[in-house]
Amino acid sequence: MGYELLVQAGTPEGLKRLEARDLPLLAQDMREFIIETVAGRTGGHLGSGLGTVELTIALHYYFDFFNKDAVLFDVGHQCYPHKLLTGRREKFASLRQYKGLSGFPDPKECPADLVKTGHGGTSLSTALGIAVANRQQGLNDRTAIAVIGDGALQEGQALEALNHGGDMRGLKYMIVLNDNEHGIGPATGALANYFSKFRTSSAYTSAKRDIKKVLSTIEENTGGIGRALHDVLDHVKAGLHGLMPATHPGVLFEELGYFYYGPIDGHDIETLLEAFENIQRIGKPAVLHVLTRKGKGFQDDVPDHYAYHAAKTSSKLTSHLPKEYSRIGGLTYTDVFVEKTLDMMARDEKVVAITAAMLQGTGLEVVQKKYPERVFDVGMAEQHAVGFAQGLKLGGLKPICAIYSTFMQRSVDQLFQELSLIKLPVLLALDRAGLVGPDGATHNGVFDIAYLSMLPNVAVMAPRDATEMRKMMDFGLSADRPAAIRFARTSAPKAEHELPDNQPIELGKAEVLREGNDGVVLALGSMVYHALDAVQKIEDRHGKRLRLVNARFAKPLDESLIAQLIERYSYVFTVEEHVRRGGFGSAVLEFANRARLDTTRLEILAIEDRYVDHGSRAEVLAEVGLDPAGIVDSIERRMGLKRTEARSGSTRNVATGSSVAG
Amino acid sequence: MGYELLVQAGTPEGLKRLEARDLPLLAQDMREFIIETVAGRTGGHLGSGLGTVELTIALHYYFDFFNKDAVLFDVGHQCYPHKLLTGRREKFASLRQYKGLSGFPDPKECPADLVKTGHGGTSLSTALGIAVANRQQGLNDRTAIAVIGDGALQEGQALEALNHGGDMRGLKYMIVLNDNEHGIGPATGALANYFSKFRTSSAYTSAKRDIKKVLSTIEENTGGIGRALHDVLDHVKAGLHGLMPATHPGVLFEELGYFYYGPIDGHDIETLLEAFENIQRIGKPAVLHVLTRKGKGFQDDVPDHYAYHAAKTSSKLTSHLPKEYSRIGGLTYTDVFVEKTLDMMARDEKVVAITAAMLQGTGLEVVQKKYPERVFDVGMAEQHAVGFAQGLKLGGLKPICAIYSTFMQRSVDQLFQELSLIKLPVLLALDRAGLVGPDGATHNGVFDIAYLSMLPNVAVMAPRDATEMRKMMDFGLSADRPAAIRFARTSAPKAEHELPDNQPIELGKAEVLREGNDGVVLALGSMVYHALDAVQKIEDRHGKRLRLVNARFAKPLDESLIAQLIERYSYVFTVEEHVRRGGFGSAVLEFANRARLDTTRLEILAIEDRYVDHGSRAEVLAEVGLDPAGIVDSIERRMGLKRTEARSGSTRNVATGSSVAG
Repeated sequence: MGYELLVQAGTPEGLKRLEARDLPLLAQDMREFIIETVAGRTGGHLGSGLGTVELTIALHYYFDFFNKDAVLFDVGHQCYPHKLLTGRREKFASLRQYKGLSGFPDPKECPADLVKTGHGGTSLSTALGIAVANRQQGLNDRTAIAVIGDGALQEGQALEALNHGGDMRGLKYMIVLNDNEHGIGPATGALANYFSKFRTSSAYTSAKRDIKKVLSTIEENTGGIGRALHDVLDHVKAGLHGLMPATHPGVLFEELGYFYYGPIDGHDIETLLEAFENIQRIGKPAVLHVLTRKGKGFQDDVPDHYAYHAAKTSSKLTSHLPKEYSRIGGLTYTDVFVEKTLDMMARDEKVVAITAAMLQGTGLEVVQKKYPERVFDVGMAEQHAVGFAQGLKLGGLKPICAIYSTFMQRSVDQLFQELSLIKLPVLLALDRAGLVGPDGATHNGVFDIAYLSMLPNVAVMAPRDATEMRKMMDFGLSADRPAAIRFARTSAPKAEHELPDNQPIELGKAEVLREGNDGVVLALGSMVYHALDAVQKIEDRHGKRLRLVNARFAKPLDESLIAQLIERYSYVFTVEEHVRRGGFGSAVLEFANRARLDTTRLEILAIEDRYVDHGSRAEVLAEVGLDPAGIVDSIERRMGLKRTEARSGSTRNVATGSSVAG
Repeated sequence: MGYELLVQAGTPEGLKRLEARDLPLLAQDMREFIIETVAGRTGGHLGSGLGTVELTIALHYYFDFFNKDAVLFDVGHQCYPHKLLTGRREKFASLRQYKGLSGFPDPKECPADLVKTGHGGTSLSTALGIAVANRQQGLNDRTAIAVIGDGALQEGQALEALNHGGDMRGLKYMIVLNDNEHGIGPATGALANYFSKFRTSSAYTSAKRDIKKVLSTIEENTGGIGRALHDVLDHVKAGLHGLMPATHPGVLFEELGYFYYGPIDGHDIETLLEAFENIQRIGKPAVLHVLTRKGKGFQDDVPDHYAYHAAKTSSKLTSHLPKEYSRIGGLTYTDVFVEKTLDMMARDEKVVAITAAMLQGTGLEVVQKKYPERVFDVGMAEQHAVGFAQGLKLGGLKPICAIYSTFMQRSVDQLFQELSLIKLPVLLALDRAGLVGPDGATHNGVFDIAYLSMLPNVAVMAPRDATEMRKMMDFGLSADRPAAIRFARTSAPKAEHELPDNQPIELGKAEVLREGNDGVVLALGSMVYHALDAVQKIEDRHGKRLRLVNARFAKPLDESLIAQLIERYSYVFTVEEHVRRGGFGSAVLEFANRARLDTTRLEILAIEDRYVDHGSRAEVLAEVGLDPAGIVDSIERRMGLKRTEARSGSTRNVATGSSVAG
């Protein structure tokens, strides 16, 4: 357990002091250390990092990312080796833990992390910008590097940047295409097919050899032939420059103006260093194509791409499902989504589903196995996913577009033009809505109500449990408008813990779950059972009974019910797993204001105007006051049920002992 | 003025009854009719439509877009010929006028308009979705067609779709690449360079001829040569398939899996019809590359691309600047942006500017002439534009990213991750914020406060006039966070009409413009002078004097001032050119609620939850009640100054006659 080389290489200076011949051993050290930590303890994106160990070593050995050069790891989940080489080895066991290291690059952790990422396809834009800034300022010794997988290269932004960059000259700008055959799942799309054609470097190498042979054979044999063949060979020689690109994988990049180098073995440090040296001499944007194996070194014989992508571990440390709350432990909402989608597809052959490189995350992998022709993975291409859904609907099918809440931010303009503007019914399944836990700020889905509800004609729902989720999916699929269902990355209550389900889903209708006269809580989606626990606790502690309303819709609102509630109750709380700005409570407030109701009775419980970092879901929910205890606390404060704890730290709430029945 | 052929071809049935030999004459008719109407009267996107006259005729002659096939005109501004052939000739003079025909496709006008567009790069996704839906349902006689320019093909969504579609088989899906050398301005980027290499079809044709000659010459001459050369020629022949694509413009598409056809003359109807016929036999996605000339037939000798893009006309019908309001008629805000950017660039060589294919629209064309190295047109690529700005800033420059409010919807996720998440100072210039007038619903910039203010760390400003715009640009460029300035498509007040400017811009500080005791109006940006006119009118009519506050910031808010206002005044109005949901007034309301203030005093004047169509800016502002008269009306109603007009239609406001002084 010494990891001596790794300890030495823990900073760039230490790494640069190593002999080049020691680097493969360092790679071995790092790989073991990462597997031990991530697979054994913390969980995380294991495969990506294991694939880039040698590449990262070579980059830090050759370049200087603390003082002049810039490296952008696209998506960022392959940055674990980078963290180990930039002074973060000792903290590495805290990866993705509350207050620990982020699972992604983060400038707060290290100046060599220029950006905070998690959403993919951005590195080319950033690196190109840095390269241009360097050029403008005459900083000619600086190189800007984007490391991007073949999956993330399919992102619209990356392709936009590829187009823009190919037009540029005089830049020290290198794109490292980390070609590992798949992004999160197996890669889809034309680019993936294209790369896979050339995947075996031996085939490419022999093709190169053949062409060289052809050229020299032509030279040798052109002595005794006639005029006509001479002409032919002139053509052929002129064409050989064209011939070569047409048979190697760089033709796309070369046609776009890039210097293309590769493909080379991305696990061969010596070859990588040689490639950097060669590319440094080129005055134009370059693409270095490296072939790597995702998850290299970890269960090498298991071809489960997903296992590589995000390591599952038995450790409780990594459990993101807040099992400590009552009433959960049933299926995850993702499971419910899968079950119900299967059911809908069985009943109606027009139902199809779309995902953007998230077959496993959304659960659609299971659906695809049963209905391979009716599940479309469009690749990392959220904008296209929504536009494609529009087309499927216009063509007479019934599309379900399943994209994480946070990634749907990529599609706001398509939600606007392709769906909302023409009020086109498409069912949007927004998984991971709310706080996701270990993936942290880049993955939290806390803006979707704002960006959806600003658009006319859209319905936004959130289910309280599995039964309601199923009903909302039925409702959404047959709605007269785009309908989004946001659901959290957590388990639903077990069936036996579900509250009775009496009321069908109607557009913009809420559901009263519990009566009470002392106040009312309007809870949305994931917050309904938290609020139920909270109002029960309030009753237990203080004998105050609050009504509980399951809002169901963030848009349109149940305006007549809300008006009644605000008129009747002195205390009205809204609870949502979303930022306050533009959220559900904000919509309630806007309505109440328009209706000239007294909104001083209304308190919005939501996430304040800041980013929430990683931790378990329970930890981060507690941090923002949206766990049951946090909701109790807010209600107590507002209703004056809480003794001020200001002076005497030991003062406990007097009512605590008085709790009687459930 | 007969346009007889055009009258006959006004419906698809009529068109199909024409002889093929008459179609070029029809094209001539249509071109003249369009020029007469658009250049002479309505204004609009003249060049795009003139470039697609023959293509549109051929499409409607060959396909059936009312009963089975689908055509999606990307962006949509080239749909004028399509409108003329689908029963809208007689209404054509109402193009872009209030209550008249839209300048873009619109399903409300015609069932052959499947979607409503205006933002580009979406047609491939939509058409691909329709083609897949057709395939799934066995509707094999239906073809889905996307007509996209080389400019729009650079959009990330289009490239995503290109990638996805190349992977598909068994589809009747045709992409018509309308290659006219430029989108809105001259095309930039690698794809544009790529296409321009092959632009002259004669060069391509002769290359094809040469290769055929080579092949046959090889066949003729391989009799008497030696073994070695035989080997060579085997290689060469095998390579020739590769050689051919490498020398023609379709290589990119073929490598991605498409059947490529072209380039052909897009003004030759016969050739187009032949191409459709050939492509119909192919069972995989096809790209038909047509060469057209934007603006063909209109001032053919003037190489002004922009003039082609959007025709300017002297007709008052098309004036979008509401000159009828008092206090305007100065520079447009776009002009002010240009002047100030020039000034900032002169003072600080680190200042650079970015636009996404909107060099002219944003005014940066002028700046680029003076500072060619410091203005970057990244093409139609809004996502990349923001990521590129991030890189430029990280590299030490001071970027100004100028994108229309409506197009910035494409970049919401980049605003989130690339700027807000790491609180990176970049100045965002959101032109066309608010209602744009003739371009209508797809171009209105009425969501930006919502999608920006939901993000932490962002400042959102709006200037009241040219002087304040300049100050805000200085402030935004040196702010400690991403700072957006939203400004309207209108002229600023003339300098002599500007109110005195005493107070420097401070983060989150509003400015009191006028004192008053009877109420207060908080106006944002474009609404400040409208509100000033309104409060003066209220005083004139009713003797009630309202305070006027220029909010300056939609985020962060001037919380201490707002708290004072709400506590002091019985009537508090907010006014903004933005939707109510998640807008400025909504933010004020959220703050007031958190501060437990009585929000029943607060009335939000904003755009309700629906889309606003085209018309002059004055007309659409009046429609939503945000012209001075509309604001007066809202204030009068709320303050009870207006007699109810309910029963007697003739009752005029009693106070109207009492207006005295200005």
